[in-house]
Amino acid sequence: MALAHKGLESSSIVEGVGFSEKHKLAFSNQELVPVIKDDDMIISDSWDIAVYIEKSYESSTSLFGANNDFNQVKFISSWVDSQLHPLIARCVVRDILDVISPSEHEYFRKSREKRFGRSLEDVVADRKDTRILLKQTLYPIRKALEIGPFLGGDNPNFSDYAIFGAFMWARVTSSFQLLESSDPIYNWRERMLSLYDGLAKKAPSVDI
Amino acid sequence: MALAHKGLESSSIVEGVGFSEKHKLAFSNQELVPVIKDDDMIISDSWDIAVYIEKSYESSTSLFGANNDFNQVKFISSWVDSQLHPLIARCVVRDILDVISPSEHEYFRKSREKRFGRSLEDVVADRKDTRILLKQTLYPIRKALEIGPFLGGDNPNFSDYAIFGAFMWARVTSSFQLLESSDPIYNWRERMLSLYDGLAKKAPSVDI
Repeated sequence: MALAHKGLESSSIVEGVGFSEKHKLAFSNQELVPVIKDDDMIISDSWDIAVYIEKSYESSTSLFGANNDFNQVKFISSWVDSQLHPLIARCVVRDILDVISPSEHEYFRKSREKRFGRSLEDVVADRKDTRILLKQTLYPIRKALEIGPFLGGDNPNFSDYAIFGAFMWARVTSSFQLLESSDPIYNWRERMLSLYDGLAKKAPSVDI
Repeated sequence: MALAHKGLESSSIVEGVGFSEKHKLAFSNQELVPVIKDDDMIISDSWDIAVYIEKSYESSTSLFGANNDFNQVKFISSWVDSQLHPLIARCVVRDILDVISPSEHEYFRKSREKRFGRSLEDVVADRKDTRILLKQTLYPIRKALEIGPFLGGDNPNFSDYAIFGAFMWARVTSSFQLLESSDPIYNWRERMLSLYDGLAKKAPSVDI
């Protein structure tokens, strides 16, 4: 989404990285996606990538607003990492088993159950309650959307993409409904799905 | 802080409003502080006041950044209302009894105990645990401050004032230490206290 925002073309050099295929990322000297390669530059981590493409391609629309408002966007993306992502994980983590290769089930289950301290089935057992907590936690997004269609204002910025990334992760791994259709955030998510000729809609999603 | 940011002078028309003195706010047709009166305009609610003075006094430094970034600031101030303020309340609410008039104890205790569903003493009994949760919840502020000295960047904006307001509320009511001095947010709070010739330091605080 950030590349599309900047009007940059990308060609994928790695076609999907399974949990057992971290060797595919060896060129980046670390083990996590996303990674981009731009000529000789290799950058990983969503935030670092966003800052890199912003500073390298200044002439196109800023990812951080006209005022290059890095601090507030960093607040919001860190809120996503620390408060939104864990709640969504508690709703969808079990379903991820159904969309990854069976050969990776054992790794995924072991590593995630260690992180949560209980079985994946136990984590999601009360996900209808988790969803109520999620709805409360999303309150600041709802208030921001009372003012304009995107966190960035009239147009999306990296704050929108950071939040949307968490919802996209759920969309491609689970059919569990995180949002009620009456929630203004539901419509915002629809707007995000429609951006750039429906770019995000093209990602394979779990049938709903 | 918002008035000082805009370089506006203010004179207090109401000298402190106790819980039993809501009649002093009758002119505003509602019962909560803050309220401002600017010629014939009467505006209540921190957010509405900030938007009003921003739009009425456009020539001075913007409260919402050079790009008038209302949406992201609204996200952050709503996060303060919904996630930060309740946690600080769970640390300081009992101490408020010690700084208000004895004649208002009954009203305060009854109304707040109804809200929390338990005695004020019970609410703060585990406040050392609440403080650990507070520290985790403050993570997005800490990350934003890695980039620059204020949420607003090189200078504070209304996001800083909204967060600072929650800390000031604690400062004037309780001696409970919310932050470790090693926390970068502690130094940010010191910077906020020093702004505008130490304006906020002049507010009466509980001796520590």
